Amino acid sequence: VQRSMNEKGQFTIGIDLGGTSTRVGLYGSTMQLVDSYRMPTRVSAGPSACVGEMAGAIFPLLRNNGIVAGDVLGIGIGSPGPINLHTGVLGVLPNLPGWENFPLRDALAEAAEIPTILESDANAAAIAEWKFGAGQESVLDTMAVVTLGTGVGSGLILGGRVWHGMSGMGGEVGHATVDPNGVLCNCGSRGCLEMYASANGLLRSATEIAKSAEGSAALRKLVAEEDSFTPQEIASLAEREDDRSARIVFERMGFYLGIGIANLINTLDLPIVIVGGGVASAWPLFAPEMFRAVREFSVVYRMVTPSQNETLEWNRTFIRPALLGPSAGLLGAGLLPRLAAIESTSVDTSLTPEMA
Amino acid sequence: VQRSMNEKGQFTIGIDLGGTSTRVGLYGSTMQLVDSYRMPTRVSAGPSACVGEMAGAIFPLLRNNGIVAGDVLGIGIGSPGPINLHTGVLGVLPNLPGWENFPLRDALAEAAEIPTILESDANAAAIAEWKFGAGQESVLDTMAVVTLGTGVGSGLILGGRVWHGMSGMGGEVGHATVDPNGVLCNCGSRGCLEMYASANGLLRSATEIAKSAEGSAALRKLVAEEDSFTPQEIASLAEREDDRSARIVFERMGFYLGIGIANLINTLDLPIVIVGGGVASAWPLFAPEMFRAVREFSVVYRMVTPSQNETLEWNRTFIRPALLGPSAGLLGAGLLPRLAAIESTSVDTSLTPEMA
Repeated sequence: VQRSMNEKGQFTIGIDLGGTSTRVGLYGSTMQLVDSYRMPTRVSAGPSACVGEMAGAIFPLLRNNGIVAGDVLGIGIGSPGPINLHTGVLGVLPNLPGWENFPLRDALAEAAEIPTILESDANAAAIAEWKFGAGQESVLDTMAVVTLGTGVGSGLILGGRVWHGMSGMGGEVGHATVDPNGVLCNCGSRGCLEMYASANGLLRSATEIAKSAEGSAALRKLVAEEDSFTPQEIASLAEREDDRSARIVFERMGFYLGIGIANLINTLDLPIVIVGGGVASAWPLFAPEMFRAVREFSVVYRMVTPSQNETLEWNRTFIRPALLGPSAGLLGAGLLPRLAAIESTSVDTSLTPEMA
Repeated sequence: VQRSMNEKGQFTIGIDLGGTSTRVGLYGSTMQLVDSYRMPTRVSAGPSACVGEMAGAIFPLLRNNGIVAGDVLGIGIGSPGPINLHTGVLGVLPNLPGWENFPLRDALAEAAEIPTILESDANAAAIAEWKFGAGQESVLDTMAVVTLGTGVGSGLILGGRVWHGMSGMGGEVGHATVDPNGVLCNCGSRGCLEMYASANGLLRSATEIAKSAEGSAALRKLVAEEDSFTPQEIASLAEREDDRSARIVFERMGFYLGIGIANLINTLDLPIVIVGGGVASAWPLFAPEMFRAVREFSVVYRMVTPSQNETLEWNRTFIRPALLGPSAGLLGAGLLPRLAAIESTSVDTSLTPEMA
């Protein structure tokens, strides 16, 4: 009998399913990235075809690294939400039109012939920041990770458990109301955090400010340019050219993000809130106003985080930028099978999807 | 050797410490109320004197019922928050001026010579509603209890654990922001839920509406009457006399309460939110607008609670009035020693105060 050089279950596969591209990562036993593959997500081809492409990417990834399917503990896949984590079925996803009600978990497990765990991309990123990023040293294993991307995602780790909630959506902090008189959101609510703190929200806000009395000629010019009207360019206008109205765009974002974080802290008395995602890279531009708003709107934050006494480290609420960057979601997805496999797992198994 | 007729640890004592009165309850092994005692809280006499009075009330309660201290498993005391549950020390309490930083748990344990557990009154009420009230049949043991009293208190039960948070405050939903442009709160924040949905908030709101164009002569008259200007009288004006402006007072309250609840559901994907406290008795007056606002502001609620399909009971979010009335806090306090004593306790011991 021939024996594989690799230990059974030594490897895991992470998949980060996005609206534009899908990444597949092969991880070793200490979560080192052995190999990875990136491909466009052919959304319009439909979910079955894309699942076939994912499986099609996994096979060469294993073969090229001398790994057989039996060496793989499992696949973890992070998907845009909402997802029903109990059934492994997708909900109605704005970024993946036509994919609603697709049984992603079971379809992938069948196509790849490897046990599969489905998570929301925001929870996957939160798991990575918890275990390897900005939340590593949290003694309470409790944190919120707010991811500012195209939209605003969120993942809650509460007492060492990924919080999945009743329906498996685990909460949508991006759709918490930060202003009941605010702008209408795509979700149908009004004044959602996402309308102010996501990339799209930032562009909307910049357009509004450009048109207002506060708008500079430079900001108006940027708004009119289709291709270069991005959060990065607004940040560049604010930082390099010290454009006052571009600064206001980020200050407004920081204000509303601060209200959202204040409500999280008021509600859950959290030790750490981590802010990640592409937009979070503009931290120096929005963080001062964010901290000011958190202090203004959170009595819990004020009580545990006295501004005069920063030495009470044991019960200070930290608000920190994420450490892992855009690969957090992939790493977190790759971690899922390992977390589920650990006997004394920190993941609440009662609320975690079973291996398909 | 004489043996007591009672089993050791058969009884528990609950204490509900309030700003105006303190209740002491003696509970049997199935949490039946054996006997109780009520006394005014002499706030100005200071916490040490009041702790002496609590102990002084416990001794006759036991003696009159033929119980010795050894038959008592422990004392549970519910106190207005904020409290540091890790140390058992009171914070800065608006309703108990001069009591700040008092080590209530240890002082009572010493005075009564019985092990003592300290909880916030809101968490104690939440525990009672969870185990004996509106949250009994929750299969996920997950719920939020929002208590509308003089202020707005909150207790979260998450996956079978009382959520205590980092500093032991366990969250202050009453101070979550429901309107960033709203009125200033005593806590120093702006637009807190408490400013709209508590008894005091309701009176403030009624005063505002009475002065406005919407105010009726009857409401203005009520506002001017010092003694009878109460939530009950406003409710009576709305219900019995169908006064439109009195109805608006409760509709506005329902609107903001709905935003607060929507944010809880958006953040935590909760199966049950329970609304208790004195003001909650006006349920028919505020609930329709509350439900409307929850639906307007919570995408999570809308997704799991389709208005056309109320048969999906397994993943419907329930918003319900509390069942236990004003004794919930006392019952929950009396339950604390028993919950802590159960080996396979549902209370997260890592975040629960130790027996003093």
